[in-house]
Amino acid sequence: MVHLVNVSVLSGRDDAYTIHVGTGLLEQIGALCAARGLGRKALIVTNERVAPLYLDRVITSLRQAGFDVHEVVVPDGEAVKSWEQAGILLDACVSAGLERTSFVVALGGGVVGDLAGFVAAVYMRGIRFVQVPTTLLAQVDASVGGKVAVNHPAGKNLLGAFHQPSLVLSDLDVLSTLPDREFAAGMAEVVKHGLIRDQRLYDVIRTAPDRFNARALAAMERAVVDSCRIKAEIVGRDEREQGERAVLNFGHTVGHAIEAAAGFGTYTHGEAVAIGMVVEALLSTVVGDVTQADVEALVQLLEALNLPTRPREGLARKAMDYLMRDKKVQEGRLRLALLKRVGWAEVVDTVSPEMVYEALVRVEDGRYTLL
Amino acid sequence: MVHLVNVSVLSGRDDAYTIHVGTGLLEQIGALCAARGLGRKALIVTNERVAPLYLDRVITSLRQAGFDVHEVVVPDGEAVKSWEQAGILLDACVSAGLERTSFVVALGGGVVGDLAGFVAAVYMRGIRFVQVPTTLLAQVDASVGGKVAVNHPAGKNLLGAFHQPSLVLSDLDVLSTLPDREFAAGMAEVVKHGLIRDQRLYDVIRTAPDRFNARALAAMERAVVDSCRIKAEIVGRDEREQGERAVLNFGHTVGHAIEAAAGFGTYTHGEAVAIGMVVEALLSTVVGDVTQADVEALVQLLEALNLPTRPREGLARKAMDYLMRDKKVQEGRLRLALLKRVGWAEVVDTVSPEMVYEALVRVEDGRYTLL
Repeated sequence: MVHLVNVSVLSGRDDAYTIHVGTGLLEQIGALCAARGLGRKALIVTNERVAPLYLDRVITSLRQAGFDVHEVVVPDGEAVKSWEQAGILLDACVSAGLERTSFVVALGGGVVGDLAGFVAAVYMRGIRFVQVPTTLLAQVDASVGGKVAVNHPAGKNLLGAFHQPSLVLSDLDVLSTLPDREFAAGMAEVVKHGLIRDQRLYDVIRTAPDRFNARALAAMERAVVDSCRIKAEIVGRDEREQGERAVLNFGHTVGHAIEAAAGFGTYTHGEAVAIGMVVEALLSTVVGDVTQADVEALVQLLEALNLPTRPREGLARKAMDYLMRDKKVQEGRLRLALLKRVGWAEVVDTVSPEMVYEALVRVEDGRYTLL
Repeated sequence: MVHLVNVSVLSGRDDAYTIHVGTGLLEQIGALCAARGLGRKALIVTNERVAPLYLDRVITSLRQAGFDVHEVVVPDGEAVKSWEQAGILLDACVSAGLERTSFVVALGGGVVGDLAGFVAAVYMRGIRFVQVPTTLLAQVDASVGGKVAVNHPAGKNLLGAFHQPSLVLSDLDVLSTLPDREFAAGMAEVVKHGLIRDQRLYDVIRTAPDRFNARALAAMERAVVDSCRIKAEIVGRDEREQGERAVLNFGHTVGHAIEAAAGFGTYTHGEAVAIGMVVEALLSTVVGDVTQADVEALVQLLEALNLPTRPREGLARKAMDYLMRDKKVQEGRLRLALLKRVGWAEVVDTVSPEMVYEALVRVEDGRYTLL
């Protein structure tokens, strides 16, 4: 069975699209792109890890539907999210003869999606693109919302655009091949979606984390469909993060700082977000109706999902230095998405850097109270 | 006296802004940026030709208004509109410590505006930018509409975005230092605006082309204010060129082909557009209420404005080859903005490539009839 989540971004452009979640979708990509009315030429962007697994299937399906298909395989890893690599892919768009009606297919995880989406955003001032996320993290997060970007040595995702996909295909079959650590990283974002907007989703995961760890089909449907629905609703109301969209940053402001302070590659993004969520949940006890017991329950859940819950010793001070340089720290002001209660987050700017540091230190020590 | 033209683009974002047209505006940039509520840090992008003339004045005005000002001076010429140069400027944004509330000032002609605007469009997924166009062409055309881009070896403006400025300052004082040939190139676009949407503007220029050639203040006000108003109205209704905006391409489809076929640098953009307008006006006699006399009157006006009106011998065939590769030739279909009458253009797709070739050849020979 295929679930459909409709996304409608209020930007006055042709930005309504559907996320398909289900099994056997890779084989249907050609028919779905044809039904979406996409032009005849397509450029698939994928990487060396994903290509051997899924590229042939996608090419075959698109060709059978009559598309003129070209492909580029980039190296695996975050390093391809660069200005230079985007330039190389834009050359490939030219070589493939892509026209205004042509489209780019991003076949891979968040890195491939961000890179290929950015290329589609700037080629001819924006051509259409199709997301085929192949990691849980990309299915529940990166493939929804239209944020595309490459990195700069000075910061992740510093160069980018808002460019909504025309179609997203989240094939649950691909989750079976994911390494455990990557799978867990994706679950961190699912937990986040529950915490910020859906207590029921949060409770479902708490009730049976092992069914999620086992990647049971019903659990995966729930994780992906609910995450897409929650994120799509928020993004639909605030594409450009002028307000509500910032609640999606819950766990991320501190998480990014921890990720950078530990050195990229030490923690996965999801692992850093897991630690960030614990710290920000602790901060939430000061501004919202969140208790020490709620924080401890979150720690327990994250541990059950094989995610870390405290920064390695000595990381707190370094993380603070990174935090103060975060692009979200606008002209010196610290804005955080915190929980008003389990199931509801809001953006607040009343938390001082000193308090964030205190929370980091306490979480490092395993103390879940700020009072 | 300063004239204000309000631009409101219906893209659901904060994209309403004002074009200021008048004298003495460079000295007021600091106060105007402060009134617009722009953040504290600014990066001015300009080039080696413009910097000695105006950079100090702009820096002084911004600093006096309390802004933290950084600047980058790029080489003169179209070659800076490259992916690589954009990357260098993005490095400069990082070095200057630009934040989400910071802004980029584009001080120069269309090349600087397109390049700096593109940089502002992708830095942090879009920060604000202020256009200070210093050529007539940029004041009447490039600074309105939010099309920003860099070139690719395979095509001009192939890589870009739609990113509206937050403020445009068109200081008429700067027109006095323009070389004659560049000034004439700007007038080609003014004539175009009259032809596609405003017969009165067209008639005013025809009545006294010498007052425009002499750059009389009242004539310049008329040229810039009316052009901005006409273009702003069209762009406000159709930012992304899904319909009406394409009428702004009148003279440009053939003009671009002539520019490329002659080798970039042979004709200025405006000169190629002038020739393109004659060819497309001749094609308009077949689809609209345009007479041979109208075409001859246009030829006469363009000559009075020191613009060429026919391609150099032998260029017609080469121009056809380029035309068929134009990005506007969508999936093989030829779409042209043609005149229904003097003062009104529409997009039509009923003209065959053979007929365009015939028109090119006839204009090359100075024959202004297709029958």
